[in-house]
Amino acid sequence: TVLQDIECSINQEYSVHCKRDENANEVYVPFSFLRNYFDVSGAVSTSGSEVARFNWMHSTAKVNLPKGKYDARGVFMYFENYNVEVRDRVKCISAAEGVPVSTQWEKRGYFYPTQIAQFALSHYSKNLTEPAPRVRVLEDGDGNQIDWSTPKTSNMTRIWHHKFNTSVVQFETAPGYEGAISIALNHTLDLLLSVDLLLVTNSSSLMVTVQNRDTRHSYTLHYIPADLLLSVQDSNIYYGLGGSALNKWRHITRDLHIDVQKGIVLGDKRSPLKIRRSDLEVLSIGFLGLGFYDNITLSTSDHMAHFYDAAEWFVHNQDPKTGGWANPVRRSLNGFAELRPGWISAMGQGHSISVLARAYWHSGGDERYLRAAAAGLQPYRVYSRDGGVLAQFMDKFYWYEEYPTTPPSYVLNGFIYSLLGLYDLNSTAPVKIAREAGKLFTQGMYSLKKMLLLYDTGSGTSYDLRHLSLGVAPNLARWDYHATHVNQLLLLATIDSDPLIAQTAERWKGYMFGKRAKHN
Amino acid sequence: TVLQDIECSINQEYSVHCKRDENANEVYVPFSFLRNYFDVSGAVSTSGSEVARFNWMHSTAKVNLPKGKYDARGVFMYFENYNVEVRDRVKCISAAEGVPVSTQWEKRGYFYPTQIAQFALSHYSKNLTEPAPRVRVLEDGDGNQIDWSTPKTSNMTRIWHHKFNTSVVQFETAPGYEGAISIALNHTLDLLLSVDLLLVTNSSSLMVTVQNRDTRHSYTLHYIPADLLLSVQDSNIYYGLGGSALNKWRHITRDLHIDVQKGIVLGDKRSPLKIRRSDLEVLSIGFLGLGFYDNITLSTSDHMAHFYDAAEWFVHNQDPKTGGWANPVRRSLNGFAELRPGWISAMGQGHSISVLARAYWHSGGDERYLRAAAAGLQPYRVYSRDGGVLAQFMDKFYWYEEYPTTPPSYVLNGFIYSLLGLYDLNSTAPVKIAREAGKLFTQGMYSLKKMLLLYDTGSGTSYDLRHLSLGVAPNLARWDYHATHVNQLLLLATIDSDPLIAQTAERWKGYMFGKRAKHN
Ligand SMILES: [Ca+2]
Ligand SMILES: [Ca+2]
Repeated sequence: TVLQDIECSINQEYSVHCKRDENANEVYVPFSFLRNYFDVSGAVSTSGSEVARFNWMHSTAKVNLPKGKYDARGVFMYFENYNVEVRDRVKCISAAEGVPVSTQWEKRGYFYPTQIAQFALSHYSKNLTEPAPRVRVLEDGDGNQIDWSTPKTSNMTRIWHHKFNTSVVQFETAPGYEGAISIALNHTLDLLLSVDLLLVTNSSSLMVTVQNRDTRHSYTLHYIPADLLLSVQDSNIYYGLGGSALNKWRHITRDLHIDVQKGIVLGDKRSPLKIRRSDLEVLSIGFLGLGFYDNITLSTSDHMAHFYDAAEWFVHNQDPKTGGWANPVRRSLNGFAELRPGWISAMGQGHSISVLARAYWHSGGDERYLRAAAAGLQPYRVYSRDGGVLAQFMDKFYWYEEYPTTPPSYVLNGFIYSLLGLYDLNSTAPVKIAREAGKLFTQGMYSLKKMLLLYDTGSGTSYDLRHLSLGVAPNLARWDYHATHVNQLLLLATIDSDPLIAQTAERWKGYMFGKRAKHN
Repeated sequence: TVLQDIECSINQEYSVHCKRDENANEVYVPFSFLRNYFDVSGAVSTSGSEVARFNWMHSTAKVNLPKGKYDARGVFMYFENYNVEVRDRVKCISAAEGVPVSTQWEKRGYFYPTQIAQFALSHYSKNLTEPAPRVRVLEDGDGNQIDWSTPKTSNMTRIWHHKFNTSVVQFETAPGYEGAISIALNHTLDLLLSVDLLLVTNSSSLMVTVQNRDTRHSYTLHYIPADLLLSVQDSNIYYGLGGSALNKWRHITRDLHIDVQKGIVLGDKRSPLKIRRSDLEVLSIGFLGLGFYDNITLSTSDHMAHFYDAAEWFVHNQDPKTGGWANPVRRSLNGFAELRPGWISAMGQGHSISVLARAYWHSGGDERYLRAAAAGLQPYRVYSRDGGVLAQFMDKFYWYEEYPTTPPSYVLNGFIYSLLGLYDLNSTAPVKIAREAGKLFTQGMYSLKKMLLLYDTGSGTSYDLRHLSLGVAPNLARWDYHATHVNQLLLLATIDSDPLIAQTAERWKGYMFGKRAKHN
């Protein structure tokens, strides 16, 4: 079609080049302008067919329809789709703790309870939704044995361990890498390395050499008994197991692909090479120094190991006085007084309780998880100004703050996550603790229903209520957060039949397709 | 430019024909689709210049910047731009009362206090902003006399009226239109007819014949002492002065153009002819029956006559028990229980008080206006459920309801209008009444500031808070109401220096130009 060029004056402020079809009395506006002006998405589809289409998407975020009633023992939301480790703001998975370290608000890295819980819940969920992993047992001292390559100056023997009632491998190597005992491999795809390890001297280590089959570049991962998070020297990537790992048996679970990728990123932040998981090949596994090992496996996944590493972290890193899992970073939300390191988050508490409730049930009743979860309820009853997470809207409705700001910020998604933790504990705990959690849950759901419409803008949702607390512009939820709101309500609708929840979820879902509320 | 056609799939729901410039990697979207999808406006400008432009207007509503500090004795908002009489929902201006009759929610027509007040305030404001009118005195019995055409069977004499200390014309005509005394005119433009009139018999009348110079069609307006609002028979348009007009001197002010146009509309609702004001010609003025008249004038405008007609209406139509001006219609707001006829509106109270405060001041202190205004404060202190207009948000903030629904609806623009009435009375009344009004005003402003952000959607405003009261979709303010919100805040900012008001006004103004709030 031949169209005429026409200048379009936008609100008398600036011009945009448009096209005009005079005969059809139509003007055409460039999508590059609309994209920014309205925050919509669109792209020409390059599918195989001859005819190109333009796909206008009001929002690119996805709604996840629940598959059934929410179950505290089952998948958490749709976290089987989460991949926490690959996020840029995850510096690495700590080899000392087996949980992610965040750099979101502090470059040096810190343990962020919310992130650790998401890591745990995603692996718990994947364990339920993914097929069982392939498990290749390399060496267990018994039925599965490898022919270890042992230099003359080094030695290894399989010995009986009375306490564990199993055979383990004892090794002793001469100083220097050439002394390492090792096994050569050409192993791909199943990159979850699992080993029971005891290192005796601080120069002992576990080493894994991998290669990028695409570039032929190889890297060596060193797991060392030092208080070091992650360090890189040329192609050597060092993960610290912690000084306290010395002389203690440790069950270590490492995703070799993640370990290598995070090392590469640390080594070259500006343009780190990305290795495709399918391109990573394990070339060798080796041991240096003095120690013992058993049960070396390479698996497609090892979800529950990650899950329990996190559950243990929660048990051992809770403030016994407050029941909180502290966020050891400063956090500044625009307009609010800074939160000082040590602040507690209702979302962190809730997520952590969701982990511990599942751990308590899945482990067949390990009380340590139950006690930690129950203690985690405390901050729900303490006001933000007193170090807890409790706020009260209009002196009426109790709220559990994702960020315990002054004045309160009332972040919606964090609050709902904090409720799910209460629900999970109420579903899995014995009566007394269940009742405590249940009371807090009921109180929270009451507030949620009373306050839910405060977040409705008629074409989206707001992320929090800072506009009410501070008298400033609403903090509109970007589409992925808006989708989270929808997904959360859809989940809640499976456990609470109040039509308000389902109706609001439907309307908020419609907003993602451009179905605005009517005007008067 | 040659562009390719491309189908655009909108949210995978339906298709829109777009254009594509493959080389520039751009897709063009038809404005006819965008107009509806986003509620924006746009048109090709057909100005004299050769180059056509497309004018995209996020909103077609206008912002009115205040010219200075708001003055209770001055113009009301920007009501000098209002033309209440021409609205389709104004059936006519009552000849008995001199105020508009509404058909907005009841086809038979009723007196709507809010509308009467807007009529009054617009004329008061125009009186301040428009040039002084041309006034043509046709007959005053003294210095200005016309040579009345008097049929043989009829007679007219100028006589001295002792009480009024002026000469008036006495007339007596034979039955039948041919007996009318009259004057032939070729008068245009100044179409406000003013006359002091006393009619003795119920077959007496004032008649004005006008002509549409465009179509040559003529009409006769009959002002009769009957309880009739408006009636049409062929080209005869009858306005009732009220049965109580008999034997009483009445100062009548009629906009002849409005009177004819409303009569035409009544006569042919489906396709009423529109007469341009500039096409209306007064052909004759005549009198029938038995009576007296004086001070016949034709003016460009007669704003203060309309204003005082309305002020008198408020004095004589107030419920002495409640202080309210009742709305004698049923009013159903979607989702709320119906308001039964007789409901009081805070907007109506406020607007009426704005009229009366100005009338009190402008008249040099006529206490009847002051007493009516003071009595009009009562409903502000009575809860909606008890027949007043008071509501309380979250048991905290007092609100004055435009529509006193259950549960409350919290309409924003009506509340602010109700505050302006309080401000006006506080500014013009003596201390005791001023203090009463001031307390209600202070209380209302406190609520307004606390609740203002509840209406902010991040890209517009909501009209009310029904989403909070009823748990339903927000009732978004269409652009002209949103502009009213902006204009009201701009006015309030001239009398209250709290930065919240000015900042919110600026942001809400920005929304009208597509400047949405940021997302997180
Ligand atoms: Ca073994
Ligand atoms: Ca006279």
